[in-house]
Amino acid sequence: MAVYKLHYFDNPRRGHAELSRLILSQAGVQFEDVRFPHSEWPNMKPTTPFGQVPILEVNGQMLAQSNAIARYLARQHGLAGKDEWEQAQTDMYIENINDLLNAVAVPFVEKDPAKQKEMYGKFMTETIAFHVVAVEKQLKKNNTGYLVGDRLTAADLAYYALFSDFIEVKFGGAFLKDAPLLKSLLVRVRTSPNVKKWIDFRNSKYYPDGNE
Amino acid sequence: MAVYKLHYFDNPRRGHAELSRLILSQAGVQFEDVRFPHSEWPNMKPTTPFGQVPILEVNGQMLAQSNAIARYLARQHGLAGKDEWEQAQTDMYIENINDLLNAVAVPFVEKDPAKQKEMYGKFMTETIAFHVVAVEKQLKKNNTGYLVGDRLTAADLAYYALFSDFIEVKFGGAFLKDAPLLKSLLVRVRTSPNVKKWIDFRNSKYYPDGNE
Ligand SMILES: N[C@@H](CCC(=O)N[C@@H](CS)C(=O)NCC(=O)O)C(=O)O
Ligand SMILES: N[C@@H](CCC(=O)N[C@@H](CS)C(=O)NCC(=O)O)C(=O)O
Repeated sequence: MAVYKLHYFDNPRRGHAELSRLILSQAGVQFEDVRFPHSEWPNMKPTTPFGQVPILEVNGQMLAQSNAIARYLARQHGLAGKDEWEQAQTDMYIENINDLLNAVAVPFVEKDPAKQKEMYGKFMTETIAFHVVAVEKQLKKNNTGYLVGDRLTAADLAYYALFSDFIEVKFGGAFLKDAPLLKSLLVRVRTSPNVKKWIDFRNSKYYPDGNE
Repeated sequence: MAVYKLHYFDNPRRGHAELSRLILSQAGVQFEDVRFPHSEWPNMKPTTPFGQVPILEVNGQMLAQSNAIARYLARQHGLAGKDEWEQAQTDMYIENINDLLNAVAVPFVEKDPAKQKEMYGKFMTETIAFHVVAVEKQLKKNNTGYLVGDRLTAADLAYYALFSDFIEVKFGGAFLKDAPLLKSLLVRVRTSPNVKKWIDFRNSKYYPDGNE
């Protein structure tokens, strides 16, 4: 059995490694969740293949790129769809989330508060609103309660990882008011036993006072 | 045999679909390279799953997200590495290129020419210079003339797709002067028979006067 070590900064505490943590947790696989302080980074950076984290270490070998890591782990542990086409669909949904993550990073780093507010507003009313309608339509078409096939995959976990951050930390849940299928998918993920165990553990360990 | 239709704008002519075209060409697989004018987009947009192209159409089913498409095609046609770990590495390199593509898109859309020039300069002297050193090191370590394993994969094609655009269209080749292994990898890809056939065909059809 492979021993996984996932290396990432201790802050932000969700960020680019959270999808892989969710995949491993959902699969019931033990892993070492290595979170290091920024002060260690200058020494560590040159030891990584491309100067960035997250890094997955598997039996001494290193893999960079959060989504390459996530897709690898999903394939290893039955969360990448049941055939090649489902795997492609799972990949597509992970890519959608990656696009949204990159898009929301633009206002996130804006320094002028008024401009930032305007940018976040535009992100929600244009980018997210459009995307939510599209995903709701796909969920209706797939008609299984999941994004891909008829069971939970890394695609559902990817939507949960980003959208739970939007709902709980950044924007509240109003943007899902016309998307009942997506809303209930997020609840289904959150309450599936292994994910629940992970989130409850994570919250009590890293956000004991309820604040992220 | 699957019939592939790849839908993308007719301009820019390389852009997000080029890696998939290279994969299919290298694999010797026929595909319909559908390039439509922007004027058709308003009608087409609502028919796509997430309102964007490229789209791969396979026997009437649609797949969005350029890299999900590329990875699917690479797996189908033996260009995704020979085992799961090589597939993960291939994925990682495709993600690296995606990050660089997103990074170079920022100066690309900047309107102020002076500012744009400065941004491109910084992209080359910081982002690209750092990355080229890292990749050169990996190529040395792998020591096969390819990025992953001992044969050509979609990873090599991804580096070729973006870096040939940098060299031939955007920046010239000076940035590779201290990276002989990467430089010869790009030549190896360019001159492998099926890629050569594709590029020669593409150039004569879309850039008959030699200008992109
Ligand atoms: N596309 C990469 C992005 C990784 C990335 O941006 N990593 C940041 C932290 S979230 C990092 O390592 N920053 C430190 C540095 O670049 O020196 C991925 O998804 O893994
Ligand atoms: N992450 C996506 C990005 C796709 C994308 O940005 N597509 C652009 C063209 S390059 C598009 O469809 N634009 C038209 C629109 O958004 O209406 C991918 O790699 O496929």
